[in-house]
Amino acid sequence: MSAAASPGTALYRRFLEAYPHEAALELETLPAEEASAVVSGEPADTVVAVLDHLAPGTVLRILAHLPATERSGLLHAMEPARAARLLRHLDVEARTAYLAELPAAITRELASLLSYPPDSAGQWMDPRILPLGRWSTVGDTLRRIRGLPSGSIATLFLVDPEDKLDGRVDLQDLAVADPSESLAALARPVPVSVSEFAPREELVARFEEGQLASLPVLDYAGRLTGVVHQSALVSAVQEEASADLQAMVGVSREERALSSVRFSVTRRLPWMVINLATAFLAAAVVGLFEGLIGRFTALAVLLPVVAGQSGNAGAQALAITIRGLALHEITVRHWVRVVFKEMRVGLLNGLAVAVICAFGVYLWSGSAGLGLIIGLAMVLAMVAAGISGALVPITLTRLGQDPAQASSIILTTVTDVVGFAGFLGTATVLAHLI
Amino acid sequence: MSAAASPGTALYRRFLEAYPHEAALELETLPAEEASAVVSGEPADTVVAVLDHLAPGTVLRILAHLPATERSGLLHAMEPARAARLLRHLDVEARTAYLAELPAAITRELASLLSYPPDSAGQWMDPRILPLGRWSTVGDTLRRIRGLPSGSIATLFLVDPEDKLDGRVDLQDLAVADPSESLAALARPVPVSVSEFAPREELVARFEEGQLASLPVLDYAGRLTGVVHQSALVSAVQEEASADLQAMVGVSREERALSSVRFSVTRRLPWMVINLATAFLAAAVVGLFEGLIGRFTALAVLLPVVAGQSGNAGAQALAITIRGLALHEITVRHWVRVVFKEMRVGLLNGLAVAVICAFGVYLWSGSAGLGLIIGLAMVLAMVAAGISGALVPITLTRLGQDPAQASSIILTTVTDVVGFAGFLGTATVLAHLI
Repeated sequence: MSAAASPGTALYRRFLEAYPHEAALELETLPAEEASAVVSGEPADTVVAVLDHLAPGTVLRILAHLPATERSGLLHAMEPARAARLLRHLDVEARTAYLAELPAAITRELASLLSYPPDSAGQWMDPRILPLGRWSTVGDTLRRIRGLPSGSIATLFLVDPEDKLDGRVDLQDLAVADPSESLAALARPVPVSVSEFAPREELVARFEEGQLASLPVLDYAGRLTGVVHQSALVSAVQEEASADLQAMVGVSREERALSSVRFSVTRRLPWMVINLATAFLAAAVVGLFEGLIGRFTALAVLLPVVAGQSGNAGAQALAITIRGLALHEITVRHWVRVVFKEMRVGLLNGLAVAVICAFGVYLWSGSAGLGLIIGLAMVLAMVAAGISGALVPITLTRLGQDPAQASSIILTTVTDVVGFAGFLGTATVLAHLI
Repeated sequence: MSAAASPGTALYRRFLEAYPHEAALELETLPAEEASAVVSGEPADTVVAVLDHLAPGTVLRILAHLPATERSGLLHAMEPARAARLLRHLDVEARTAYLAELPAAITRELASLLSYPPDSAGQWMDPRILPLGRWSTVGDTLRRIRGLPSGSIATLFLVDPEDKLDGRVDLQDLAVADPSESLAALARPVPVSVSEFAPREELVARFEEGQLASLPVLDYAGRLTGVVHQSALVSAVQEEASADLQAMVGVSREERALSSVRFSVTRRLPWMVINLATAFLAAAVVGLFEGLIGRFTALAVLLPVVAGQSGNAGAQALAITIRGLALHEITVRHWVRVVFKEMRVGLLNGLAVAVICAFGVYLWSGSAGLGLIIGLAMVLAMVAAGISGALVPITLTRLGQDPAQASSIILTTVTDVVGFAGFLGTATVLAHLI
């Protein structure tokens, strides 16, 4: 089926043009062959606006089913940074083949973007800069902007004759200025910039620091090589904010859902080995009480309950603290308040859970003593979990580390050790009650 | 010490003006009294630019130490949505006192913003809209923009005589247009809008859908009541992206690091009780093998090792899948690829960890059989962890739920049950080797 030949073509085109998001949702439900037939023959700009709403994997499968000329037309029409980020998902062979289909100038541009490390500022930037100097007039500048896609520019960056960054002009100031004025009169200092090789984390930090709608990217000599636009900045902020989720369990911030198995295994395995060492530590604590467990096997049965509750209570305190630090709601200086709050939450939730748990254990085992022991241990473990959940990321930050990095692995060690020692220790003291 | 009276005043002021971010970092290191003395007497706009870089808690402590007139001057100079979000951190008494110090018009504006539910679009919007109709001319509009703070506007929203949303004009189009033209000639359709009561999640979804630099907020009758600007949208995107971290362990997306203990306890406790039920399930699995544990107490000692490894391996798969779904890198339709990838990662990491673990257990226990049993169980548990880590958020999404919500609690149940059953089951079969 070719959409271009069907009688509904005009309607299709209107739908793609006016409702790119809805069109994307529809395309997503179609097999790749049919989806590519629908977009085939439509204007490249229209199709690109639709593809912008689709997952990279879906876009690549649609592109794979298009004729080479259409495919290269679409890659050409995309924002270069977006096209480059898309091509990164391909293996080297397919990427080389796609690049070979493009006009030489575009191939060079994309190859240059692809040469930056993944998630570096160079990868997020738009390399097509409008070279403007201080002595350009407002009128001239407006004429040059006229041809650019609407909404693509918020700030204009000025360069000196050596291409070095030399100030910025806000679009709003430009709009209200006299056409004969020179840009020098409107120029403001640029509070922040990033190097081409700056990691995403730094890109986001500079953006928050400068609070500009777009961020200039400079090479080693301070020459303007590109601009990270607002839409790319929002994506970068979003990717960085959600990366904490991965970092806390020992997954690299760069790993993607469809990264290669090789990448995933090599990055995750070291943390799994560290986790193994900490698990042996928790096991060693249990080992101290092997004799007691031999006498009362019910204690072994209840170990997962103590570990499960203190682990989750700690994870709750950990999550809220990591997020508070990331969103700058709290700083390291607030540690007393945060720890005290989490301690009280741990105590109150611990008391509530302890009562339910003690009653459940009494019903199961018929031993009020065992119920008392797990209840006491639960309160202790959950208070400790709250305190350490707050302290782990604050301490990591204080030490100049990423507060999320492997924090869950560190925390689980603490909650397991304290939980097991508390539970089995209480059981040792109160063994006569079991 | 009063900064206004000290000889370094001019230098202070220059520092505050030119380096707001650095000034904020310095203020953060001072006690609140000294920090407020530094900003006291400086121009409100300069101070607000500095405060924008500080945590809400820090800003409120500085405000508390300022004279009432200066405090109200600063709250007045802030973007209303930001001032309202700040006041939300105060208890009702302090909030009422601060509002009473402000001019009546500002009090009304802020009280109206504060009346929206937390994290609703009404809370993020700037209520100060420029009422422009289709028949305003470009020249008139530029004159009205002239007085506004630089960088504050990217898109102008048009209203009809009944204040209903009637199109948008891009600042870039306005800048290059003829001054005598009417805005009608430049108007474009508005692809998306949100209601005042839309939750943050919907605000972010609409923003991604429309890809506009700012988003119009409409009341129940479709009247324009405010605009969410780019900077607020970036904050909303960031808060939403990082909220998955909390949701997965049963902390509400609305909870903040310094929320009240009461709020935290009431929202977290239900999930802790559910977690307790799932922990009992895991305990029941261990209970099935109580006789075996009575004979070989070493098995009880090794339970935390199996649970710890499969728990963390599952959390890795969970984190990357939740993030992939949130960033639209994958959709539910990619489930086979994601699950297959995580299965292979689980298998390879499982084999590597199993070898190390089996060797460690052999060294500790002197029993090659026990090493073999934990090694086999480890491979099985880590493959199962990878598969379920990927499947839990995909299934939740497929069921129309939040993929992150309590996912860690669900996952831990699976990894504990499979891990314990696998380990103790293997031990039962191979008991003659221990």
